[in-house]
Amino acid sequence: MEQRQIVVVGGDAAGMRAASVAKRRGGDDVDVVVFERGAHTSYALCGLPYFVGGLVHGADRLVARTPEQHRENGIDVRMGHDVRAVALGAHEVEVVGPHGDVTRERYDRLVLATGAAPVRPPLPGIDAPGVSSIHSIPDAVALDALLRDRQPRRAVVVGGGYIGLEMVEAFLLRGLEVTLVEKLTQPMATLDPEMAERVADALVALGVDTRLGVGVEGFETGADGWITGVATEQGIVPADVVVLGLGVRPRTELARDAGIEIGPTGAIATDDHQRTSAPDVFAAGDCAQTTNRVSGKPAWVALGTHANQQGRVVGENVVGGDATFPGVLGTAVTKVCDTEIARTGLNRREAADAGFDVAAAITEGRTRAGYYPGVSKMAVKVVAEAASGRMLGAQIVGGKGAAKRVDAFAVAIWNGMTVEEFAQLDLGYAPPFSTPIDVSLLAARGVRL
Amino acid sequence: MEQRQIVVVGGDAAGMRAASVAKRRGGDDVDVVVFERGAHTSYALCGLPYFVGGLVHGADRLVARTPEQHRENGIDVRMGHDVRAVALGAHEVEVVGPHGDVTRERYDRLVLATGAAPVRPPLPGIDAPGVSSIHSIPDAVALDALLRDRQPRRAVVVGGGYIGLEMVEAFLLRGLEVTLVEKLTQPMATLDPEMAERVADALVALGVDTRLGVGVEGFETGADGWITGVATEQGIVPADVVVLGLGVRPRTELARDAGIEIGPTGAIATDDHQRTSAPDVFAAGDCAQTTNRVSGKPAWVALGTHANQQGRVVGENVVGGDATFPGVLGTAVTKVCDTEIARTGLNRREAADAGFDVAAAITEGRTRAGYYPGVSKMAVKVVAEAASGRMLGAQIVGGKGAAKRVDAFAVAIWNGMTVEEFAQLDLGYAPPFSTPIDVSLLAARGVRL
Repeated sequence: MEQRQIVVVGGDAAGMRAASVAKRRGGDDVDVVVFERGAHTSYALCGLPYFVGGLVHGADRLVARTPEQHRENGIDVRMGHDVRAVALGAHEVEVVGPHGDVTRERYDRLVLATGAAPVRPPLPGIDAPGVSSIHSIPDAVALDALLRDRQPRRAVVVGGGYIGLEMVEAFLLRGLEVTLVEKLTQPMATLDPEMAERVADALVALGVDTRLGVGVEGFETGADGWITGVATEQGIVPADVVVLGLGVRPRTELARDAGIEIGPTGAIATDDHQRTSAPDVFAAGDCAQTTNRVSGKPAWVALGTHANQQGRVVGENVVGGDATFPGVLGTAVTKVCDTEIARTGLNRREAADAGFDVAAAITEGRTRAGYYPGVSKMAVKVVAEAASGRMLGAQIVGGKGAAKRVDAFAVAIWNGMTVEEFAQLDLGYAPPFSTPIDVSLLAARGVRL
Repeated sequence: MEQRQIVVVGGDAAGMRAASVAKRRGGDDVDVVVFERGAHTSYALCGLPYFVGGLVHGADRLVARTPEQHRENGIDVRMGHDVRAVALGAHEVEVVGPHGDVTRERYDRLVLATGAAPVRPPLPGIDAPGVSSIHSIPDAVALDALLRDRQPRRAVVVGGGYIGLEMVEAFLLRGLEVTLVEKLTQPMATLDPEMAERVADALVALGVDTRLGVGVEGFETGADGWITGVATEQGIVPADVVVLGLGVRPRTELARDAGIEIGPTGAIATDDHQRTSAPDVFAAGDCAQTTNRVSGKPAWVALGTHANQQGRVVGENVVGGDATFPGVLGTAVTKVCDTEIARTGLNRREAADAGFDVAAAITEGRTRAGYYPGVSKMAVKVVAEAASGRMLGAQIVGGKGAAKRVDAFAVAIWNGMTVEEFAQLDLGYAPPFSTPIDVSLLAARGVRL
């Protein structure tokens, strides 16, 4: 093989995984150059709330691998470099260096791993000090410093999705009074309403002032310019610190400007090899669109797991491999204090939207034998196709040990199992781990077809 | 339907489940009579070690449903009744009542749910006070009383299987010095040696005097007749209390004497409807043989899960249903203090015995993100068919959260997934629950075909 240059844009999970695999597979036959705008590589975005919550001591613990460590593996990592254009015909990228110098770099294969950006609607006061997103190590370090230096008492979290709930937990752990403001009438938009209601109940039980169905109109500031309150449809909520958990959007400007196809989800369209519409250009991670295996439709899920897996696929393919990414189920887990939350596949609405005739049921059960210490309640909702009984999705809300039960559902849905088949599975049972027949099995049996 | 009489022998999980389902389905058309030798129905055998360990307060908490509660559901439960013979031709059972009175009871359908009995080899001194099996509520209550009344200091557990390890934990929780004596060179005979070694290391780390490869020859007693030590091939181990964890054997005397076929596992042969070789006679639970779905061979696994599921199948079938039990994978989980242990499918030896050409690998990983509090190590062994990559089995040893990961493997093996397919699954990830790519996925990828 002639010497090849592989250029990667973005030095977090997907980009560095692609770079690492390409270098390991390609060895001396490939030069791998990574351009990263920021100051960190391979860091755990999903760990930021736990750092803010004080569970992780030192933001450097969130860095899986530093630029230096990547360089030791033969990867040419260039920090503080912003790729601002791709010339597809010339096979070149235009890069702005840390001192404003502009250079062009040739590529044989280009990997776009530009990630996602937090959604920040143009509301009055959104840029006030004390209002932050949590999407980078500097974001988290700044918030941690603010919590220590200014000793705020009242936190408001705007948005009740994954990051929102994780930040609620973080503020509770730091001893703040917490208000959650969510425009929808439920937290966790990816759950069906009855399951989300259980999450809302858990928030209230934790003492969180939970305001659902309330839109945010802006941010009030004091004489010093700092945040003092969140203006909502239902009046002002006093706030000493605010975090926005309004979701993320794929960073696609670079691809879009180059004329690379953007999919209906707003993320970069890719095929099962993570190839984009442009020759020799791949995309992976939070900027890339994929496919939902249950609906067969385009999907966009910003999650470290997929970033890693897609990065590996790209890393193999840029050095001549034939790896494929099989699509996603939309499996996700999180927790807020002792309440665990999980989902996989399609919820009822998504299933209906995908054209399925749906049968579904919620089953209440326990995480452990009823007599075993630490037992807690859990609820499992199973969504199936009414005619065939094929499982389409599952949602779980419950105490410790509840969430990872979603994996059994994920494997079952991946394999097209029916609820009747699932109900007969041989899952692990012992009193510390389950009731004699796991609630997951009862939940599958609970669906009346 | 004419009035039918259903007779059930044995009032624990399988028998009472069969009775309950039959009564619920059959209603007034069926009389359901249950004969139970002991004083309890529907109790949690697998909870006994946790009661002895002091985690469960009151043995009555282990009773899911009392005889009275079953009677309220219309089941004629007769306690202290020992069925001593079955006359297949006459469709009758011969029963010895609590006062020694012998009666005969006609059946239209007979359900054998005679359970299992602890193995008690005829060793000198095995019946001495202070030496006990843990297989019934009276066993556990007596041991609990002994621990309180005699305040023993040194406990010896004979046998390092599930019950043995759970009793090790129970004695540690009660503050005793514990010695484990196991004839094999590893604990947990159903794990491959390298995985079992991790369990042995955990026992040693807990301060358990772990004596592997040491046979027991008898039990020493003092002047008062009470246990003073366990005589082993390597000398006497002092003991103030001894528990036997030598496994269980199916109780098949009643079936055998009636001429009902016993399978190669020593348990009652059944088909997929839980029918025995005799007309109108069914068997369920610890006395019944089933099939291993991976090897296709007869299997016998005494576990509450299967007892419940088989009981349900029988309950439906005795009232004219057509339910089937699909066989087992041999999924099992347990823990000893903070070390969790799980297995499903075939281990390497079992796979080789079943004629498979085996590829296998052990992968080390973590239960949570490396920076998240409470993260611990876990090891996963995956056993696959070398030619096809089809997964045959998995074993897990690790910290909190490790064991129930076995469920994802169980579902995958049930569906015949290959290691390559498994490695691409979309499993749940968040820092409190997993590394970005779950160690289960890495373990599947780790198998070189």
